[in-house]
Parts: sequence; C-alpha cells; structure tokens
Amino acid sequence: MIKHLVVVGVGLIGGSFALDLKLHAKVEKVTGVGRSKANLETALRLGIVDAIAANLADAVASADMVMLAAPVGAMPALFAELAPVLPADCIVTDAGSTKQDVIAAARLGLGDRIAQFVPGHPIAGAETNGAIAARVGLYVDKPLILTPLPENRAADVEIVELLWRACGARIARMEPALHDQVFAAVSHLPHLLSFALMDELASRPLSEIYFRYAGAGLRDATRIAGSHPEMWRDITLANAEALMLELDALGEKLKSVHGLIEARDGPALEQMFARAREARSNWLQGKYNE
Amino acid sequence: MIKHLVVVGVGLIGGSFALDLKLHAKVEKVTGVGRSKANLETALRLGIVDAIAANLADAVASADMVMLAAPVGAMPALFAELAPVLPADCIVTDAGSTKQDVIAAARLGLGDRIAQFVPGHPIAGAETNGAIAARVGLYVDKPLILTPLPENRAADVEIVELLWRACGARIARMEPALHDQVFAAVSHLPHLLSFALMDELASRPLSEIYFRYAGAGLRDATRIAGSHPEMWRDITLANAEALMLELDALGEKLKSVHGLIEARDGPALEQMFARAREARSNWLQGKYNE
Repeated sequence: MIKHLVVVGVGLIGGSFALDLKLHAKVEKVTGVGRSKANLETALRLGIVDAIAANLADAVASADMVMLAAPVGAMPALFAELAPVLPADCIVTDAGSTKQDVIAAARLGLGDRIAQFVPGHPIAGAETNGAIAARVGLYVDKPLILTPLPENRAADVEIVELLWRACGARIARMEPALHDQVFAAVSHLPHLLSFALMDELASRPLSEIYFRYAGAGLRDATRIAGSHPEMWRDITLANAEALMLELDALGEKLKSVHGLIEARDGPALEQMFARAREARSNWLQGKYNE
Repeated sequence: MIKHLVVVGVGLIGGSFALDLKLHAKVEKVTGVGRSKANLETALRLGIVDAIAANLADAVASADMVMLAAPVGAMPALFAELAPVLPADCIVTDAGSTKQDVIAAARLGLGDRIAQFVPGHPIAGAETNGAIAARVGLYVDKPLILTPLPENRAADVEIVELLWRACGARIARMEPALHDQVFAAVSHLPHLLSFALMDELASRPLSEIYFRYAGAGLRDATRIAGSHPEMWRDITLANAEALMLELDALGEKLKSVHGLIEARDGPALEQMFARAREARSNWLQGKYNE
C-alpha cells in the first residue's frame, strides 16, 4: 500500500495509473503535478487526484512513490529537480516510451540516489491526451515493460510490479537497449510513418480532393498521427539512432516493393501481401503471447 | 426498379450492394455469380442473393443490371465473357478500385457495347471478405465515385446513381485519371505501406519479441494489411505508374524525416507532427466534405 503517490503529468498514462490504483485501494493519497494548472484542476474535479501541487519539491516531501508520466524530453529537468528533495525511502518510477535516455537522465540527475529509480513503460498509448483522457482499466492485459537497474533493490522493483499488476497489466522485464530497439520498430517507426504520410498528403495541391474522398483505410492507418507532437518529438530524439536505422530499413523495403511493381511481378506482390496478412493475423490471435 | 440484378463477386462490396437494394426494394431478383461455390451458397443461405448461377452467360440472359464486384484483374475476362451474351438493354457497372484499367478492359471486351458500361467505385473497403462480410448500411454516407464515359446514356448513369443513392452513398463524379491519382495517394499507397511495414517486421530475427509487445498503434496502422492479397495485387498492378510515383514521394519524405532526426531538429519534427495532426483532425471533422 502506497501512502502518498505523486504523479507528474496527469494525462492518459499518469491519470489512468492513479485512477486504477485508487479504485484498487493501492494508494491512500494521490497528488498531481504538472505544467498545466487547468489540466490538474480537471484531474482534481474528476477525482483522479486528491490534491495538486504547484511544485514538485512540496509534493515529494511526504511521498513514498513518484510516477513520472511526462514527455521523455522533460525527464532530465525532473530528475534534477527531484534529487535534492527526494525522501530516502521514496521509489521513483516512470512511464517513458524510451528507456536508455531516461535511465541516462536519471543517473545524471539522481547521482547516488539512482537505486531509487525503477524504470518502466506501459504499452497503452493512444492519440488522446490530458486528464480527461484517463480511463479505468486502460492497462488491463496490456504489456508493462520494466527495465530494472543493477542498483535497484529487488523489493522496490516488486512494489512497482505489484502496482502495475493491480492495474491488470502483463509484466515483462527487458534490457533497456532491447526495449528501445523493439519499440523503435513496433511503435516509434509506425508513428513516424503515420505522421509522414499524413503530412505528405496534406502538403499536396490535391489535398482537399484527397480528404474529401479518403476512407477508413487512411483513417486507421493514420490514427496515431493524431498523437501528441511534443511527446513524439521527444521520443523521436530520444531514440534517434534506432529510428534512423528503422527509416533506412523501411526505405529499402519500399524500394523493393517499387521494384516488384516495376517488374509487374504479380505473384511476388501477392505473396508479400499474403505474408503480411498472415503475420498480422497470427499476432492478433495471440500466437506470440507468453 | 431493377428486375434482375446479377452480382459477380458476392463479397463485402457486391454482397452489401445486393443486400441494401433488396431491403430498399430496388431489385426484384438478385443472382450471384462467382468463383467460389461455397461463398455463393453462403450468400444464398443468408438471403443476400435469390439464386446462384454456375456461369455468367446463363445468369445475364435475363438481367437488366450487372454489378462486377470482382478483383480488377478479373475484369478483362469478365468483359470478354459478357460481350456476346449481354442483352441490349442491360446496364453493366462495377465497383473496381481503379478506373482507367477497368475502362480500358471494358472497351476492349465490350467493343461497340461500351455505352452500356457505367464505371463506379464505392469507398467502403474493409479487410474482411466473402459473403459473410456483407453488411446492411455499409454505404451510408460513404463516397461513391462515378467516372461516366462519353458514350454512356445519361439515363443509364442516373439509374446507377439512383441505386447507390438508395444505399445511402454520397455520389461524386470524377474523371477516371483523377480518380486513379487520388486513390493511389489516399488508399493504394497506405495499403502498400501497411503491407510493407508488417512484412518487414515479420521478417526480422526479433519478430517474436516485436509482436509480443506491440500495441494498438501498430495494430491500427496495419489494419489494412489484413486486406485481400489477390485484390490488392490487382489494384497495385492496375495503378502501377501512379503507385510508383507515390512510393518515390513517400521515400523522399522519409529521407527528409531522417534528415531532421540526424540534425536533432526538435522544432521541425514537432512542427511536422503538429501539421499532420491538424490535417487529420480537420479531415475527420468534415472540413473537406462538400
């Protein structure tokens, strides 16, 4: 049982985390901290948090758990702010979409308090944001990746794990480097593609005609182009090296598709489409679940 | 009122068309024709068609309307088969996703009967297929593009338009070349991207780990990679030239994104994401509707 949870960034991710922990009686009190006073007041009005604090230091003084659910680009400043005020028995965790850079920021900011930081990443993003986007049960059956540090106390990692388990998440542990490589491929690249496709079409002389007649295919393929620009700027920069490799690989793939079309190679195109369809079907039928 | 409608290809598109016309009492009798006897029997059992025919010639003899809802690659053979048996007062229409190649196939196959062919394209695809995928109201508020020929009788075009209007579609008329250019961008390119992304990820050594942890972003971005491989092979080949241009343009766009990441240009990335998000939001809020 957490006595006082401080959530920094009370949006879809941080807000839903607080909400579920309250509903499952895993926290006594939740304080929200964030850049937008209006958003914090919404969170308070909705009952997602019990209190709001103007600055992190005041809130953290009595906290035994801090959840950092801010854009990853904000993490260095948050760790630096936390370091001098963090109680010795307070666990810090995060929900950042990249892990190597957040861990590096934590090491730099927290210094010899690094053991208190247990890095995590819930796979439950959406294109919605703000406290109003918080949802009961958001994490049910969703993967929650922990990338614990060698310095972490096992008991602290277990507490973080327990909280996420209470939210219904499927817990996995992974090395930070593997995490960043995997999510560059399955999350960050699709987001970049979706943004790029939408921006490309919107910049064309025919864009008005395009969007008058575009259907559900484009709508779903670009759902994640509705995601938060600042959050995705930070993720893109945080995972820059892996993402450039992914863009190169996809560029090569598109060239090979171009080659198949140029050669009017119907059988090879059909086989490629069939492989893609089958892989997706296997995935969604749970073939790859543990 | 159509006395006898023959639907070639009783799947999502052809089946839903027949279904709605029956419910709105716009047809007296529907006969289904297609390659799969099992699918036709499903259509009959579901009440989507009133009869099934083993070959097109038998079915068409008494028809006053033929809907070709087969993959576009099957169109040349269908027009050739139709030509010698087509009653003089029978209108032929289609639901093909490309128009220039279907029109060329019609000219070649139908010869001086070309005036009887009114080309159309309903924007209501999905990744489901077969008669079982047919849905009541599929076309409500969906665009229906007609690309009439100079040879068409105005009265015939109006009958086709009336039928689609009865299904609830929003009718638009367009030149075939513009149609193919627009749908290369907003439909065919996103499908190729989705197939290519899925096939690329599935071919990697880490694919099992990828799909164990991939979330809703990838799921939605690749929904259309669940589409029918043969249908999309045909569309890709039918619209090959436009699609190669689209792949080139997107390749350039991805290179420019790569350049922004390499330069760690956060503001430009954020601006691009914000433009994409705004364009999508404007589109889905109906800013581009007539």
